[in-house]
Amino acid sequence: MAAIDTAALEPKIVARGKEFFQSIAGEAPSIFNKGWWTGKVMDWAMKNEDFKVQMFRFVDVLPYLTTSESLSRHIEEYFGDKDANIPDVLKWGAGKTGFGGGLVAMVLNKAIRSNIEGMARQFIIGEKASEAVKGIRQLRKDGFAFVIDLLGEAPLNEKECDEYAAGYMEVLNGIQAEYKKWDGLDVEKGAGGDLDWGHAPKVNVAVKPSAFYSQAKPVDVAGSVEGMYRRIEPIYRKIKEMGGFMCIDMEQLKYKEITIELYKRLRSAPEHRDYPHLGIVFQCYLKCTEADVSGMIGWARKESLPISIRLVKGAYWDSETVLAKQNGWEIPVWTIKAESDMAHERISRLILENHDICHFACASHNIRTISNVIETAKALNVPESRYEFQVLYGMAEPVRKGLRNVAKRVRLYCPYGDLIPGMAYLVRRLLENTANESFLRQSFAEGAELERLLENPETTREREVAAKKAAVAPKAGPGGYPAFANHPGVDFTIPAARAGMANALATVRKDFGATYPLLIGGKEVKTAETLDSYNPAKPSEIIGRVCQAGVKETQDALAVAKKAYLAWRDVEPLERAKVLFKAADIMRRDINELSALQVLEVGKQWDQAHADVAEAIDFLEYYGREMIRLGAPRRMGNAPGEVNQYFYQGKGVTAVIGPWNFPLAISAGMAAAAIVCGNAVVYKPSGLSSVVGYGIARIFKEAGLPDGVFNYLPGKGSVMGDVLVEHPDVSVIAFTGSMEVGLRIQEKAARVQPGQVQCKKVIAEMGGKNAIIIDDDADLDEAVTGVLYSAFGFQGQKCSACSRVIVLDPIYDRFVSRLAEAAKSIKIGPSEDPSNAMGPVVDTAAQANIIKYVDIACSEGKVLVKRTDFPADGGCYVPLTIVEGIDKSHRIAQEEVFGPVLAVMRAKTIDEALDIAGSTRFALTGAIYSRSPKHLEKARKEFRVGNLYLNKGSTGAMVERHAFGGFNMSGVGSKSGGPDYLLQFMDPRLVSENTIRRGFAPVEEDDDWIA
Amino acid sequence: MAAIDTAALEPKIVARGKEFFQSIAGEAPSIFNKGWWTGKVMDWAMKNEDFKVQMFRFVDVLPYLTTSESLSRHIEEYFGDKDANIPDVLKWGAGKTGFGGGLVAMVLNKAIRSNIEGMARQFIIGEKASEAVKGIRQLRKDGFAFVIDLLGEAPLNEKECDEYAAGYMEVLNGIQAEYKKWDGLDVEKGAGGDLDWGHAPKVNVAVKPSAFYSQAKPVDVAGSVEGMYRRIEPIYRKIKEMGGFMCIDMEQLKYKEITIELYKRLRSAPEHRDYPHLGIVFQCYLKCTEADVSGMIGWARKESLPISIRLVKGAYWDSETVLAKQNGWEIPVWTIKAESDMAHERISRLILENHDICHFACASHNIRTISNVIETAKALNVPESRYEFQVLYGMAEPVRKGLRNVAKRVRLYCPYGDLIPGMAYLVRRLLENTANESFLRQSFAEGAELERLLENPETTREREVAAKKAAVAPKAGPGGYPAFANHPGVDFTIPAARAGMANALATVRKDFGATYPLLIGGKEVKTAETLDSYNPAKPSEIIGRVCQAGVKETQDALAVAKKAYLAWRDVEPLERAKVLFKAADIMRRDINELSALQVLEVGKQWDQAHADVAEAIDFLEYYGREMIRLGAPRRMGNAPGEVNQYFYQGKGVTAVIGPWNFPLAISAGMAAAAIVCGNAVVYKPSGLSSVVGYGIARIFKEAGLPDGVFNYLPGKGSVMGDVLVEHPDVSVIAFTGSMEVGLRIQEKAARVQPGQVQCKKVIAEMGGKNAIIIDDDADLDEAVTGVLYSAFGFQGQKCSACSRVIVLDPIYDRFVSRLAEAAKSIKIGPSEDPSNAMGPVVDTAAQANIIKYVDIACSEGKVLVKRTDFPADGGCYVPLTIVEGIDKSHRIAQEEVFGPVLAVMRAKTIDEALDIAGSTRFALTGAIYSRSPKHLEKARKEFRVGNLYLNKGSTGAMVERHAFGGFNMSGVGSKSGGPDYLLQFMDPRLVSENTIRRGFAPVEEDDDWIA
Repeated sequence: MAAIDTAALEPKIVARGKEFFQSIAGEAPSIFNKGWWTGKVMDWAMKNEDFKVQMFRFVDVLPYLTTSESLSRHIEEYFGDKDANIPDVLKWGAGKTGFGGGLVAMVLNKAIRSNIEGMARQFIIGEKASEAVKGIRQLRKDGFAFVIDLLGEAPLNEKECDEYAAGYMEVLNGIQAEYKKWDGLDVEKGAGGDLDWGHAPKVNVAVKPSAFYSQAKPVDVAGSVEGMYRRIEPIYRKIKEMGGFMCIDMEQLKYKEITIELYKRLRSAPEHRDYPHLGIVFQCYLKCTEADVSGMIGWARKESLPISIRLVKGAYWDSETVLAKQNGWEIPVWTIKAESDMAHERISRLILENHDICHFACASHNIRTISNVIETAKALNVPESRYEFQVLYGMAEPVRKGLRNVAKRVRLYCPYGDLIPGMAYLVRRLLENTANESFLRQSFAEGAELERLLENPETTREREVAAKKAAVAPKAGPGGYPAFANHPGVDFTIPAARAGMANALATVRKDFGATYPLLIGGKEVKTAETLDSYNPAKPSEIIGRVCQAGVKETQDALAVAKKAYLAWRDVEPLERAKVLFKAADIMRRDINELSALQVLEVGKQWDQAHADVAEAIDFLEYYGREMIRLGAPRRMGNAPGEVNQYFYQGKGVTAVIGPWNFPLAISAGMAAAAIVCGNAVVYKPSGLSSVVGYGIARIFKEAGLPDGVFNYLPGKGSVMGDVLVEHPDVSVIAFTGSMEVGLRIQEKAARVQPGQVQCKKVIAEMGGKNAIIIDDDADLDEAVTGVLYSAFGFQGQKCSACSRVIVLDPIYDRFVSRLAEAAKSIKIGPSEDPSNAMGPVVDTAAQANIIKYVDIACSEGKVLVKRTDFPADGGCYVPLTIVEGIDKSHRIAQEEVFGPVLAVMRAKTIDEALDIAGSTRFALTGAIYSRSPKHLEKARKEFRVGNLYLNKGSTGAMVERHAFGGFNMSGVGSKSGGPDYLLQFMDPRLVSENTIRRGFAPVEEDDDWIA
Repeated sequence: MAAIDTAALEPKIVARGKEFFQSIAGEAPSIFNKGWWTGKVMDWAMKNEDFKVQMFRFVDVLPYLTTSESLSRHIEEYFGDKDANIPDVLKWGAGKTGFGGGLVAMVLNKAIRSNIEGMARQFIIGEKASEAVKGIRQLRKDGFAFVIDLLGEAPLNEKECDEYAAGYMEVLNGIQAEYKKWDGLDVEKGAGGDLDWGHAPKVNVAVKPSAFYSQAKPVDVAGSVEGMYRRIEPIYRKIKEMGGFMCIDMEQLKYKEITIELYKRLRSAPEHRDYPHLGIVFQCYLKCTEADVSGMIGWARKESLPISIRLVKGAYWDSETVLAKQNGWEIPVWTIKAESDMAHERISRLILENHDICHFACASHNIRTISNVIETAKALNVPESRYEFQVLYGMAEPVRKGLRNVAKRVRLYCPYGDLIPGMAYLVRRLLENTANESFLRQSFAEGAELERLLENPETTREREVAAKKAAVAPKAGPGGYPAFANHPGVDFTIPAARAGMANALATVRKDFGATYPLLIGGKEVKTAETLDSYNPAKPSEIIGRVCQAGVKETQDALAVAKKAYLAWRDVEPLERAKVLFKAADIMRRDINELSALQVLEVGKQWDQAHADVAEAIDFLEYYGREMIRLGAPRRMGNAPGEVNQYFYQGKGVTAVIGPWNFPLAISAGMAAAAIVCGNAVVYKPSGLSSVVGYGIARIFKEAGLPDGVFNYLPGKGSVMGDVLVEHPDVSVIAFTGSMEVGLRIQEKAARVQPGQVQCKKVIAEMGGKNAIIIDDDADLDEAVTGVLYSAFGFQGQKCSACSRVIVLDPIYDRFVSRLAEAAKSIKIGPSEDPSNAMGPVVDTAAQANIIKYVDIACSEGKVLVKRTDFPADGGCYVPLTIVEGIDKSHRIAQEEVFGPVLAVMRAKTIDEALDIAGSTRFALTGAIYSRSPKHLEKARKEFRVGNLYLNKGSTGAMVERHAFGGFNMSGVGSKSGGPDYLLQFMDPRLVSENTIRRGFAPVEEDDDWIA
């Protein structure tokens, strides 16, 4: 490898860039041409952020607007209430006058549609394979090579994957029929040949791996690679037949490891080892890419396999950032655009230095980036056959022309396919072109200085860093603690996270079969009677034998709790909060073991189990902070001479009766709330998750909670439940579970018992019969995924689970067929195996009950899906079931099943859909998928549930962000994890002090004295 | 009257002042002498505000510290936990070393007491009459005239008034025995005579009118004047016998009108008209004084009666200001000290200009003020016999000496009396001396420039106004409305306020006997059955005939309300709040009529009735603002790509079941809360106050509330109560009343009825058995007044009323005897007559029930007071009863009476007192009178009731400032008029919107994007 003089290179790069710009002087990408509709719209979008949002969202929804009515309605909703308010820019090209009448409006609307579709077509080489082939032919005539890509990301089911793979075969067949006849590109010599430029295969195909396997997920690298390989390998084989080149695209970060593994497997497969034309993409905006490329080159050398890398900047910056922010992860991408540019220059050089083993495709529209590659390659004496340039079809025409002038070898990346995925592609392209940092925008729309455009990105970065405001100090929370933030979602793209879970499963298994005593006042109490908790995937496997409290133990525990309360209520709020923070620390430390135990005791999938522990941590951190906030006495009024303080006092002994489905989070949450408010807790876990429940006791003890403030009291409801509820010393009952039990508790608690001195407070979170509405313009990719996850995640055993999906007539067939197919693709099996998406239900009783409801569902409606292909190994499996033809009167539309049974209901209008949604006694969660601003607004008001999600699924509420809980028969309490929750565990007190003595009042700082 | 040249006067005043200062060069008031203990303490107090507060408070409590233990404990509590922490300044004079041992501490403590008592004695001419006479004799020898005043303000009962009057007779007898022997003061001539200075009576006496009548109150001017006259006239007669002079002092503003009337009556009484030596005091700090003096001179001229005015600056500035601020009144005093000085100069001149009819006494220590009087009098040629100067005994020795030098005629104001009122007097003097604006402090402690001390107060004022910070903008409340402020307390010192009530009583009487229909959905519904509401003071007087809802009407009303709810819940919070604000406007307009109706329908005293309407207004204004605050959706979390909004929705149909004791405030409050939260109300008023209840319906209608949102449904609980509670369409029951009914509602509401879709929320405010603790160092003047008002105000018919008073052993006898005497002094009769402090109870049933409890109380304890001297006119009167010898086990210590029956309980220690206080099922209000910082702190923690008052009575909670409500069996709801109240009427909802489409998320302003 030749050492190059970097300092000498810089002026050459700039000179090369200037030459490049000169060669295209006066040209501009057609998208910025303001003489055209597209250019005008782009111009407006760049000037007006609101319009941009509306415009791009409208583009996104457009292909769903199949009727004239629907089109008109959306144009009105997105761009104004009346025709007259539609921005002039949109009207352009539709005639200049007379937008009053309906007919004229229709013409306008049609023009808008046609303009947008035209805009999309600019970036797509054809909607059909035959059009694509025709387009390619023309490109080649213009001197451009191609790489073809089939639009249509993220298929939702295996059938769609098959269809997608078939789409590739179709276009390959089309190409196969004629590619032999194409002259090889060789602009220099003007001569023909089998290869382009004398060295490159004429046929070049890009594939997006995630599109080939619907069940891919980071936690299951091997399974995902296998799923993708199965469909991609035949395509590769076909390309090979044609002597072609295949490039595996890189998509979101979550598929990065899988993509690299897929590449390695395909590249090193015995029958393909000798064929060199397989490429992979790396994205410079990822901070990890430099190391990844280095690793890939190392692998190539070790395996002695020539490879090819296409280097791009990366197209998912927004969503990678949002995803990281939403999950509390480190931002994985460079946050300053120039940093990605710098990375491209560094990595380009790394690849070019290794050109002997790694072929290079530089994919960029940035003339500085391109010039850097040209000059670096020159300095390194890289043969032209070892690197090429790629740009996107329909974008940056001056750049591709300049490249053809300067670098000769230009390949256009050509998507083909339907307008539905095409519009999604268009939005990405529009975003790219209108971003402030866009090189194209700066070069061709804003006419930035050449010096600036070509400057070393390191200089750009330095300037931007200097110009940046000082980092905002992290938001301060109460009591000097950092503001609350959710525990980061588990990131199974990290191998250590996967290994951690695997190890933890083994660890917790070691304790199986142990006996768990009651814990009263810090003392272990053993009972003669015990209850076995077993693994629902394997009922013969006993997780633990749990002692069972009788009446006496219950009375003892209540007496101990009462005594503990009298001391604990006067401990300072901050000190109480600190115990919660310590418990959160312990949970963070033990998160894998705590999660693994849930996987085995209640059958949660890995991610679901992790989410439960994360939620428990969140409750502890949030309620701790909330108590610090509420614990500071508030001065009421500011009259001088009196100081009034408003503060809270814990209510007393709190019975916490927990569910098994969020065995740690909900129980720990209720208990933590009670404790931090100054109450003492007697905790009755569900018999199905008592071993997880024991963990709570262990953690509070380790966290230093005084004995007696938390007492662990597993027991049979039939034996000791009423004692817990009716005992005169119980002040609060915090319950989460079924409506039947909740109402019973409420009624019993309302009856005052002899010796009782307080009215009992019942906080009951009960059931749901949650609906998701699918509007006729819903993004089906999102909607199907959301419904599937909401209905069948953790086997539908969540109070927030979706059990009704209400589908608007126009989209009914499309939605239902995709949903059914997707449901058929779900992998079912023990939750311990992370490749499974659905496992067994919690126990045999639940199994029997759900099967009863499956029968009801099947008798009331028409079966769409009934999956009986689950393991027949004695595990508590039930059929995943979807039925249609259900209306409000059916039992399956009214009764909570708590299992993977979904009723599909049809609605003619959004109003009917909302009416159906609101037709049960419950009001817990709900969701709507819609891209109609008006319908979303309507749902916001009229879809009256505790937690409503717009364009998201109905489950997965996070503490604080999605403060959780419903009303009507779904709950009598205020939202858990929300700002009003703790108030329920306390009584407010007010102390008013008259500070005047002998007419003399000391002045308080916040007195409202005379001005 | 001679016109004087003001411009020419100014330099003369300054010159006179300088001459004055020169004549006393080098002298200083003894109180500032740092060579003495007092001077050191004063110096420290001026430098250290905290010490000043503690020191003055300690001085105040000192006379109550009768044991060595008590003294030591208080010194520790006020000045430090350990002896070693007692500020050195206090130790001064007690030896320099060795403060370790108990004996030494005792010596120190004794020294502190002795030093403080010495300080008090400096301002008091004697503790006994004989000492006072001796002191006067000495003063006259030194060339000073005197005016004698007996300490002991605000007697609490008529016996104390008699004793106080007797104190005057005692000292007058002492003087009478020897005054003939005294030479007349005549410094100029050195000659003797019967008069001082040849013209002034030797005997000069000041009287504080409020001390002569314990039942004085502004609303009852005639009665108060009569009560005072009865005891003062004999004293005046005695003074007249001796050829003496009497001056009626002016006290707090609330007695001003009464004092002026008293003066006029005495001055113009036929037998006293010819005797000129009667004076009255005016206070320059009152903004109204200039007009008052003018009016008084006008009266004198009209009556041709020579008068005498003593002009002072005023000694109650702090308390007048605090009182005004606490009641929301205009500040009645000048807020800049120089403004009072200016007023003194203006009014002095006014008086001096009228010297022919008005003799003048200038009472001031301010040399500028004095110089102004001297020079103005000179300019006006006022004879020396027509004006004199007064200063306080023991204060400002240099000033009195200077006055003797310059003006010759100096009279010292000489208080005499016990150290208990003496200490109170001391505190006022200390405050006066240490105030920043104190002329004495500035002149003698801080050595301010002469020019400054003598400058025209107009100049001072201009400078201070200029230096003042710009007026703070009034605190902004939610929605752009001004921040909440309580409706001003009614001010019956204003004659129009009294006339307003008298007129309103006549007005509402005109409507008596009318029939009141139900109001359902805005329509009047008449029923066959009606219930009469009568005047409890005169049961034959029918206030109104009220239609009574049956089951059908109740069901109709609920159906109407349900329908109205469905529309009303979606009206914007701000619009809902505006209806409340409008209703408040109407109540403000109609406050007299609304109050008058209560006086007649339930027997409230005028002020109590006004307070009820004011509270209703407050609820409307407060809840309106609260809803605006809560109505703004809160964004939860700031992750980009999702916007989560937390907001509230009204729960549904709300049954409001109101009590009769706060017939407007509590019902309007509950209803307003429900309404503003978006619920619809069916309101069942108490049968005893249904006519007042009708007013609420009328007001909401006039305020524009849509029909059906508030329905007026009087009816018998036995007929329609259960329907209201159990109906499946009722979502909320807001109840205020007895524990028995509250618990019954709670139990019934918890049982879910067929067709019911929500769990009912019960907000029940129930009873109390409220205790006031009297600590052994309590200020008895305050404590007796507070207990009386709390126990017997509105006949004890408040849930907050005091029904137990727990008295610490050492103070038991003193407290109980004063309390009993005070209770015997209370005027009982129809509440319509504002001179009565106690009226009839609400109806014959209440009467019978209370009489039953009076019997129980009398059988369980020893009767201290049982007032049977009430009108025997068929009114619903009951005996005001106080019994002692009660312990926790007695029924009268546990059961709520809701009448004027007070149990006195004895406790040995504060811990025992707190234990007794907490020994009932209730936890509503409580109070403690104590001047022990530690005991107050202990009570703050351990006196566990909803509303605890320190050094105030247990009733009279104001909206927001004293957010009201208890726990245990006193309530299941959150505090009314507090920040958590509205939450009970709403369900929280959360809408989470996924704003990402195609990886594109619009940026929200408060997103937590990358730094």
